Amino acid sequence: MKLGKVIGQVVSTRKEGNITGLKLSVVRYLDERLQETKKTTVSIDTVKTNTDDLVLLCTSSSARMTKVTQYVGTDSAIVAIVDSISKGKQNWYKRNKGKDRS
Amino acid sequence: MKLGKVIGQVVSTRKEGNITGLKLSVVRYLDERLQETKKTTVSIDTVKTNTDDLVLLCTSSSARMTKVTQYVGTDSAIVAIVDSISKGKQNWYKRNKGKDRS
Amino acid sequence: MKLGKVIGQVVSTRKEGNITGLKLSVVRYLDERLQETKKTTVSIDTVKTNTDDLVLLCTSSSARMTKVTQYVGTDSAIVAIVDSISKGKQNWYKRNKGKDRS
Amino acid sequence: MKLGKVIGQVVSTRKEGNITGLKLSVVRYLDERLQETKKTTVSIDTVKTNTDDLVLLCTSSSARMTKVTQYVGTDSAIVAIVDSISKGKQNWYKRNKGKDRS
Amino acid sequence: MKLGKVIGQVVSTRKEGNITGLKLSVVRYLDERLQETKKTTVSIDTVKTNTDDLVLLCTSSSARMTKVTQYVGTDSAIVAIVDSISKGKQNWYKRNKGKDRS
Repeated sequence: MKLGKVIGQVVSTRKEGNITGLKLSVVRYLDERLQETKKTTVSIDTVKTNTDDLVLLCTSSSARMTKVTQYVGTDSAIVAIVDSISKGKQNWYKRNKGKDRS
Repeated sequence: MKLGKVIGQVVSTRKEGNITGLKLSVVRYLDERLQETKKTTVSIDTVKTNTDDLVLLCTSSSARMTKVTQYVGTDSAIVAIVDSISKGKQNWYKRNKGKDRS
Repeated sequence: MKLGKVIGQVVSTRKEGNITGLKLSVVRYLDERLQETKKTTVSIDTVKTNTDDLVLLCTSSSARMTKVTQYVGTDSAIVAIVDSISKGKQNWYKRNKGKDRS
Repeated sequence: MKLGKVIGQVVSTRKEGNITGLKLSVVRYLDERLQETKKTTVSIDTVKTNTDDLVLLCTSSSARMTKVTQYVGTDSAIVAIVDSISKGKQNWYKRNKGKDRS
Repeated sequence: MKLGKVIGQVVSTRKEGNITGLKLSVVRYLDERLQETKKTTVSIDTVKTNTDDLVLLCTSSSARMTKVTQYVGTDSAIVAIVDSISKGKQNWYKRNKGKDRS
């Protein structure tokens, strides 16, 4: 999976049947220093993210292996909100719990 | 999914059986500022787009999860026409409704 | 799907069983001006192409959705020969019918 | 498969159901000299790696072909710890057995 | 499929069950002049290659469509040894038969 940051939402009224009713989030991929890259994807949100959440993105056919996306025509899904990332015994990233507003 | 812009159509008389009768649209991928890149793909149009529509593209096996593309040998499908994109509470993109001519 | 141009053929006597008897074409990917890039792929030819034909390439699991490639271990198939490409009402590419020699 | 090096772990409390309980490792892809690149992925660990292990990464739908990842929404899995790599009769890489602490 | 050149072998004692017993070859991708690039992959060898053989690589789910790799967690398989490549009526590459030592 790739690390990404939620930056926005897409609204669409004319869409293929099976993605109707699902939340379409715009996500920036992160680089090796956890900084936003210019690469963007639109993902089905299966874990109720908020803007600025650091998330795990699952692509291709695996994006359809969640309860929400089964049988859905998507090649990208947000499958987890990242709490922390460690490097050996060091803490590399820690989520700001104050962000948990949903 | 990726964001793209419909720029043209492909006509083919000699093609593999199961894509016969389907609309083949040429789509430019968009960059992080929603500007056209040089990267182009040809997608099955499942939502009746017009030229210049901003769309969502679905790739790989997921491109076959729509009613139109089931069992079709395509690795790319247009699955939605984007109405608007928001960043937090800001509006980032809004579709020109005058374009809805189909 | 991607646009490509057929430039050659591959011959192989020692190959995995299920691609035996199929035509293996060398294809150059085209850029946004329909010029050949340096990126090359080898595809199963399902539509009897000739050298220099402009074609549509289908990749990954979708490359196995044609009658010819079903159950075949290929990640790339030529699924159509392009006759013409239009941009709005303009003609962008038109196939030279004199090429139809097969 | 790609060669990678395990550099860290991801912790997530809010995640899609079917990746719950699995170890999420941060892996750096290696270049042609077996040096770490800047490209990073997050993979399900199926072989109990330690930090700094050189591993084989399996992606896309194939990442779900292990006992651990069957039916799991992941597009990346660590499927082997590399002991050695040879180039013809030369030894190119040999694992430091002292690392086997798990 | 992509063209590659076999450059080495990977040995692993701790690996996911279903790749046990299979030959893991290190392969360099070739560029448009058939020269080795810096891009490397590790593939299941289904056709008994030797070092320096020019081969066809099959990726993603299609890598599992061979007798050897069925149900195996691999995203890359060597599916053919290339004998020759022609460009129109010209010979572009011809295999040195002296290499056939296996």
